[in-house]
Amino acid sequence: MKKYLFLFFLLSSVCAFADDGSRLWLKYDLLADAQQRDTYLKSTQFVATNSSHPTIKVAVQELEMGLKGLLGKAPALLQTATKSGGIILNVAPNSPSTLPQDGFELFSEKGNIVISSKSEAGVLYGAFELLRHLQTGKSLTNLSMKSSPKIKLRMLNHWDNANGTVERGYAGSSMWKWTELPFRIDPRYITYARANASLGINATSINNVNASSRFLTEEYLEKIKAVADVLRPYGIKVFISVNFRSPRTLGGLKTSDPLDPEVRKWWNEKTKEIHRYIPDFGGYLVKANSEGEPGPQDYGRTHADGANMLAEAMRPFSGIVIWRAFVYNADPKGDRFKEGYAQFKPLDGTFDPKVIVQVKNGPIDFMPREPFHPMFGAFPKTTLGMEFQITQEYLGQSTHLTYLAPMFKECLDTDTYVKGKGTTVAKIVDGSAENHSLSLMAGVANTGSDANWCGHPFNQSNWYAFGRLAWDYTLSSEQIATEWTRMTLTQKPQSVQKITDIMLKSHPIYVSYTYPLGTSHMMGEGHHYGPEPWLTKAARPDWTSIYYHRADSMGLGFDRTGKVSNALQLYSPEVQQLWGNPEKCPLDYLLWFHHVSWTQKLSTGRTLWDELCHRYYDGVGQVGKLQSAWESVKSDVDKETFEDVKGRLKIQEKEALWWRDACVLYFGEFSKLPIPKPLVPPTRTLDDVKKLTEIYHLR
Amino acid sequence: MKKYLFLFFLLSSVCAFADDGSRLWLKYDLLADAQQRDTYLKSTQFVATNSSHPTIKVAVQELEMGLKGLLGKAPALLQTATKSGGIILNVAPNSPSTLPQDGFELFSEKGNIVISSKSEAGVLYGAFELLRHLQTGKSLTNLSMKSSPKIKLRMLNHWDNANGTVERGYAGSSMWKWTELPFRIDPRYITYARANASLGINATSINNVNASSRFLTEEYLEKIKAVADVLRPYGIKVFISVNFRSPRTLGGLKTSDPLDPEVRKWWNEKTKEIHRYIPDFGGYLVKANSEGEPGPQDYGRTHADGANMLAEAMRPFSGIVIWRAFVYNADPKGDRFKEGYAQFKPLDGTFDPKVIVQVKNGPIDFMPREPFHPMFGAFPKTTLGMEFQITQEYLGQSTHLTYLAPMFKECLDTDTYVKGKGTTVAKIVDGSAENHSLSLMAGVANTGSDANWCGHPFNQSNWYAFGRLAWDYTLSSEQIATEWTRMTLTQKPQSVQKITDIMLKSHPIYVSYTYPLGTSHMMGEGHHYGPEPWLTKAARPDWTSIYYHRADSMGLGFDRTGKVSNALQLYSPEVQQLWGNPEKCPLDYLLWFHHVSWTQKLSTGRTLWDELCHRYYDGVGQVGKLQSAWESVKSDVDKETFEDVKGRLKIQEKEALWWRDACVLYFGEFSKLPIPKPLVPPTRTLDDVKKLTEIYHLR
Repeated sequence: MKKYLFLFFLLSSVCAFADDGSRLWLKYDLLADAQQRDTYLKSTQFVATNSSHPTIKVAVQELEMGLKGLLGKAPALLQTATKSGGIILNVAPNSPSTLPQDGFELFSEKGNIVISSKSEAGVLYGAFELLRHLQTGKSLTNLSMKSSPKIKLRMLNHWDNANGTVERGYAGSSMWKWTELPFRIDPRYITYARANASLGINATSINNVNASSRFLTEEYLEKIKAVADVLRPYGIKVFISVNFRSPRTLGGLKTSDPLDPEVRKWWNEKTKEIHRYIPDFGGYLVKANSEGEPGPQDYGRTHADGANMLAEAMRPFSGIVIWRAFVYNADPKGDRFKEGYAQFKPLDGTFDPKVIVQVKNGPIDFMPREPFHPMFGAFPKTTLGMEFQITQEYLGQSTHLTYLAPMFKECLDTDTYVKGKGTTVAKIVDGSAENHSLSLMAGVANTGSDANWCGHPFNQSNWYAFGRLAWDYTLSSEQIATEWTRMTLTQKPQSVQKITDIMLKSHPIYVSYTYPLGTSHMMGEGHHYGPEPWLTKAARPDWTSIYYHRADSMGLGFDRTGKVSNALQLYSPEVQQLWGNPEKCPLDYLLWFHHVSWTQKLSTGRTLWDELCHRYYDGVGQVGKLQSAWESVKSDVDKETFEDVKGRLKIQEKEALWWRDACVLYFGEFSKLPIPKPLVPPTRTLDDVKKLTEIYHLR
Repeated sequence: MKKYLFLFFLLSSVCAFADDGSRLWLKYDLLADAQQRDTYLKSTQFVATNSSHPTIKVAVQELEMGLKGLLGKAPALLQTATKSGGIILNVAPNSPSTLPQDGFELFSEKGNIVISSKSEAGVLYGAFELLRHLQTGKSLTNLSMKSSPKIKLRMLNHWDNANGTVERGYAGSSMWKWTELPFRIDPRYITYARANASLGINATSINNVNASSRFLTEEYLEKIKAVADVLRPYGIKVFISVNFRSPRTLGGLKTSDPLDPEVRKWWNEKTKEIHRYIPDFGGYLVKANSEGEPGPQDYGRTHADGANMLAEAMRPFSGIVIWRAFVYNADPKGDRFKEGYAQFKPLDGTFDPKVIVQVKNGPIDFMPREPFHPMFGAFPKTTLGMEFQITQEYLGQSTHLTYLAPMFKECLDTDTYVKGKGTTVAKIVDGSAENHSLSLMAGVANTGSDANWCGHPFNQSNWYAFGRLAWDYTLSSEQIATEWTRMTLTQKPQSVQKITDIMLKSHPIYVSYTYPLGTSHMMGEGHHYGPEPWLTKAARPDWTSIYYHRADSMGLGFDRTGKVSNALQLYSPEVQQLWGNPEKCPLDYLLWFHHVSWTQKLSTGRTLWDELCHRYYDGVGQVGKLQSAWESVKSDVDKETFEDVKGRLKIQEKEALWWRDACVLYFGEFSKLPIPKPLVPPTRTLDDVKKLTEIYHLR
C-alpha cells in the first residue's frame, strides 16, 4: 500500500496546478460532498443511447467527462437501458410534444433520467442542463422539467480581424488562428463549442463586421470550413461577416451596386461556393454604410436593396442575412439617437423574409446604461434582432468587475407599450409581439487568446449570462450569477452568496462612477479607455464628448423632448410620458432626455450638481466595499483567481477615482459650484487628470 | 487499500491534462526511470544555504520545485549542511577563483554537490544547470564543472506595444498586461523570469523600439517598476526603449535637439526619476532616425550626439545606453547593405564608454541567411552588440519549423580576419578581439500571450537556443537541440535523436524553399507573410523585392563587387577574397554578391537556373521528410503537442509550395527557361500564385 500512497502523493503534488480559468464554467472538479456524490452516482450509473449522430456522441462524451470529473466515476455507456439508475438520451423527432425543435425535457421514468428532445441538439442542451444540476447542487429526484429557447438564433458576433487582432477585445488576440487553419485545429475551438452549447448558443459569426474580403476567398473558405466542421456537432452554425465591396475587390467587377445583374450573379455564385464548403452555412452578417464601411448607399440604393440581394442569393439554402441597423451620419446639429430609426423606418415592410435587421440594445452605442433602442416596437413588418455587447468596450474592459445580466435584462424587460402594456422589448425580439417566425439575439463576443478566454475572470460571467438569457430571458440575474459562481468559483454557500451579491451590485456601481444620471459617451477618444468628458474635437462631431453631455453654464444633459431634438417622440406615448417629464423621469435616464439646471432639485432632495457629485463619490466608495467583500471569500476560491481579481479590483478603484475626478472637476468648470460637503474635493487638478488621459493617446 | 487505489485513479484522471506548453522547458515531470530517480535522490536529499538573499531564495525554490517534480520527493531545506548527500549553495564574493561575477562552479565535495559563485545570480545559474543535468539524464557523480558567460549582457528585446499588440509577434498579444499593472502581477511574469534565468539571460527591454513616450511617464514607470521587482530576484535588469522626441512630447519642450541644454536637463531629470522607481535600471534602448523614428539627425546632430547625451544622463548610475545601428535611407540607386556602416563609420571613437551600438547580424534585416554585418570588425573603438531576431519575421512566423541555432552560429563563427585568422564575429561581440569591457547579445523576443508562449511549439527552442548561445556561443547547435528536446518533448533516446535531426535540418530546408543561393527580401509587403518576389512598387524603393534580387533577362543577384555597389569592400581582404569571386563564392552566399547569368555553370555542375529550381523543389520535398520523421516520434511525445506540430507541418508544406511556385514561375519569366527535368512544372500559373499573395494584403 505504501507504494500506492507514494504514487498518490506524487500525483497530488504534480497535479496541484493553479486554476488558469481555461475550463470556463465547465470545470467538472470532484464535488467535495461525498454523500452528495453518492446520491448522484445512484442515478448516473450509465448513459444509454442507440444514436450514433455526431451531436449525440458529443453529448455522451460530455456526460462521461462531466460525471467522471464531478463524481469520480464515469458512467457505463450502453446502447439501451436494461436496468434503472442511469441516463437515457432520447431523440424523438416525431414526438407529439409541443416543445419546439431545440427544446428538451428532463424527467424521471422507471428509475432512469430521460433527456428527450425532437432534435439531437435539444438532447445535447438537456445533457448540459443535467450536468448543471450536479454542478449547482440540485436534486435529481423526481425530475420533471421542460425547457425551450425563447429566441431561435442565439449567436455570438466575433469582432476578430484576419490579422489576429480583435476590435474591442480585452483578452489577448483572436482565438481564431487563421494562419494555422485548416490543418491545425486548436483544441480551444472544442472548448469554445462546448461552452456555447452548454448555454444553447447555436450560431457564431467568426469575423469582424468591419469585414475583410479575404474571408470570402477559397483560401479562407477552406479555413472556415474546418472551423464549421468542429462546431457542427455542437449545434453551432457559422456565419461570415461580409464586406459589401467584395464583388469589386474579389470579383474584379466595376461596381458593387446591389441592383447590378453582374453583382447579383457574383453573390449568387459566391453563396453557392460557400455552401460547397459548408452545406449548413448560417448566413451573412453585414455592416454597411456605417463608420466608413461600403454599402448599397454608395450606389444610391437602400439598405433593403443590399440586404434583399443577399437574401436572394441565399434563397436555395437554409441560411439568412443579418443586416445591422447601426448607422449614423456625422451631423453636428443632428441627434445620433434618431439616425438608425430614421434611415430604416421607410424600409419597414420591404425586407425579404430571410433578412433580420440587427439593432443594438440602445440608440447610441453600448453605453453603460442606455434607454432601449426606439426601433424596437416601431418596425412591425421587420424581424428585428437584438445586438448586445458582451465585450466591455465601455464597461471596464478587462479591469472593472461588471456583471452585465442586469443591464441586458433592464433593456429586455422594458415595456415598449406598442401593443399595449406588457409589450416588452423581449417580446419584440422573440417575435411574439408581431408574430415573426425568425428571432435573433446576438452578443459581441469577449473571447480572446488569453488562457482564461475573457481577461478579467468575472468577464466570463457575461458570456455565460448572455447565453443563458438568449435561451430564456425570464431567468433572473441573481439565478444566473449564482449558477455561474457555483460552476466557476466556489460551492461554499456563504461565498456563493457574497459573490452573487458582488456581481449584482457591480453594474450600478460602475455606472455610478462613470455615467451617472443618464450621461453617456465621455470616454477616451478612439481606445475608449478612461474618461475624456472634455473631448471637443474629433474626426466626427458625434465622436466628441460634448456632443452628448451638452454641459453649459446652465446645466447638463441632452434635451430630447422636442426643443433641441425630438428623439423622445420615436417611442410610444406611454414611454414618452414616463421619460418626458424631467420632474418624473427616473433619475437613471434623466440626462438622456433632459437638459437639467445645475441647481434643479431632484427627487432625492439634492440639486443636480450635488446628486452628480454624490453619485461619483459613492461609486468610488462602493468599489472599496467590493474589495472587502472579495477579501471575505478568499479561503473559498482558487488562490490564483483570488489574487487576479484582487489585483484588478485595485486597478478598478484607481480608475474609478480617475473617472470621478475627471468628471466632477470638468463639470465643475460649468456649474461653478463647489464639491458638496462632506465630500472631500479631489486633491489633483483638472490638468492633472487631463494629462493622465493624454498618456493613453500616445502611440 | 481500495480507497487509495480509487483516489489514485481519480487523481490520474483529473490530472490527465494535455501539455499546453506553458511550462516551456522547465517541465519537471517525474523522470520515468525509477532507478535513475533513486540514484539522483541520493545526491539531492537537501539544499543548504544560510543566505536569505532574494536570488538565493528563488534558487532554493526552483531546486525544491524541480527536484520534487523530477524525482517525486522534495529536498529538505537546511541552513547548513550537517550531513552528506545534498546540495550546498555557496556565495563567495571574495573567492580567489578567476571566474567572473556571473560564472559558477558545480563540484562534488565531501559527498555533497556544491554550487558556488561570486554572485547570487551565479548560484542561481548553477542551480538551473544542476536541474538541467537531471532533465537531460547526466550523471551527478564526481561533478566538476565551471561555466561562465562569454557575453556580459544577455538580453531580450521585446517589440511589444503599449496597446497590447506585438510588432512581428506570432504568438498572440503582448505578454505584458499594462492595463493590469502595477496591481496585478500575472503569474506568467514569474515563469518568464525563471525561463530566462535558466539560460542566463540577465536583461530585457520591455517595449518596442518603435517606442511610445508613455513608457517614460510616471503612470507607466510605476507599472515598469512592478515588472522590475518581479524580475530582479532572477537577476534580470529592465531596459526601456525610448522615443527620442520625448522631451517635446512629455516635457513640453520645443526641441529634442541633443545639444540643447534644456533637452539634456530633461533627460538628466527623467533618468533620475526612473531610478527612484528602479534603482538598478538597466538603461535605454534607442532606435533613432530609422524607418521614420525621430532622432538627433532631425536637428542636424549625429547618432553619437544623441547616444552620448543619454549616456551623460546615465553617468551617476550603473545603466547604459544601447543605440541601434539599423539605419538606412531610401535611395533607389544606393545599396542598403552599406548604409549602417556608412553612417556610423565616421563616429567610431566618439561614443561615450557607456554606449553600446547594437548591430543586426546581417546588413539588411534578419533575412533567413545573410552574410555577417560588415560593421563587425570595422569599429575597433566602439562596443558593438549583436542583435539577433528570435521571432521568426522572415523565418516562417508560427507555421514553419525552423530551428535557428545553426543560423546564429553561422554568423558568430564567421571569420572577419580583421585581427588575423580566427577573429570571428563572436570575438568582436564578446569584446575580446578589441578589448572592450562591455559586451551584448540581444535577441528580439518571440514571446506572446499564447499559452505556449511562442506559437509553434518548436519556436520555444529558438528562445532557448538564443539564451544558451548568449551564455556560451561555443555550444554546438546539436547539443542545444538535444538538451531542449529532452527537457521539453521526450526523454526517449531514439526520438531525441530524430527530433534533434529534424531541428538541425530545418533551417537549411527553410532557406532552400524561400531564399536559396543567397537571394533575399522577397516576402509579402508589410506583413512579410508568404512570397512576393514581383513586388515592384512600395512606399520606399528599398522595401520592394526587385531592389534586392535584381532579376533580369541576363541573370539574378545583386552585384556588390564594385560595378554596381562596392559593398564587398567593407569587409577585410580575406573575406573579399572568399566571397568576391563568383566562381568560388560559396553558393549559399552567391547572389548576395554577384549577378550571375541564368546559364552560368555552378560548382554543382548545374546552371544557375537549374540549381535554383532544384533547390526550391528540394526544399519542398524535404518538408515531406520532416513530416514523416515527426510521424515516427508520435508514441514518445505528448499527444496534443504531436498533433499541433503535425498540423503546422502540413501548413508548412503548403506554404513551401507557395514559395516554390511563386519564385520559379516569377524568375522563369526572366530566364525564359523551362523547369528542368525531372522536376514537374507547377500546375498553377504565376497569376494564381499572385492572387494567393494578394489575399493576404486585403484588410
